[in-house]
Amino acid sequence: MTVPAPAKVNLSEKLGQFTEQWSPRIVARYNGNDVMVVRVEGEFVWHSHPDTDDFFLVVDGELDIELRDRTVTLGSGELFVVPTGVEHRPVARRGEVKLLLIEPRGTPNTGDEATAAVKVEI
Amino acid sequence: MTVPAPAKVNLSEKLGQFTEQWSPRIVARYNGNDVMVVRVEGEFVWHSHPDTDDFFLVVDGELDIELRDRTVTLGSGELFVVPTGVEHRPVARRGEVKLLLIEPRGTPNTGDEATAAVKVEI
Repeated sequence: MTVPAPAKVNLSEKLGQFTEQWSPRIVARYNGNDVMVVRVEGEFVWHSHPDTDDFFLVVDGELDIELRDRTVTLGSGELFVVPTGVEHRPVARRGEVKLLLIEPRGTPNTGDEATAAVKVEI
Repeated sequence: MTVPAPAKVNLSEKLGQFTEQWSPRIVARYNGNDVMVVRVEGEFVWHSHPDTDDFFLVVDGELDIELRDRTVTLGSGELFVVPTGVEHRPVARRGEVKLLLIEPRGTPNTGDEATAAVKVEI
């Protein structure tokens, strides 16, 4: 069995392949990490990841990443890495936001396997 | 000593802070990785990384990532992950290209410590 050669990823094209929100799609692998795109709108849950940082890059829209002591607001072309163990809540209050996310493979997006979204490869 | 709270990163703003080409600037950390921006133009050297994948996302411009058997051309908003051990040569033939790169901390950009650029944090 041969592993297919990796292809380039056009973020807008991948984001155009689905409309469901809060449902990350895996578009590439980088070492042990999933590189994902996701559409979000409204409030997510407060959570943290005990074993990993959490990488957010806004492709389109404006995202508030609420931390317990401050809010980081990201526009298109802006990124933020939530440090390991830091509680956060992504909130898209001003319309839908399209994101690029990077997390180690298998990381539950809510910080909890029981409530995590299934990450589908596209 | 307190570690400063991480700040958000505006990619265009960071890329506006320098003009030197082929000199990656570290803008964030994600787990054991450096998240970098870089300006490139012309041909880089053929190289590979024996221990890591190599993450490229084009912020602006058009980049050819030459592989031994094909060329992957990336425009703005497109990404490609060069698999571990695969020989590649990034080439910007059609003007300057601005990139977001992710590599494990300490990875020599040429695949060789002797010729690697020093990565400065900004």
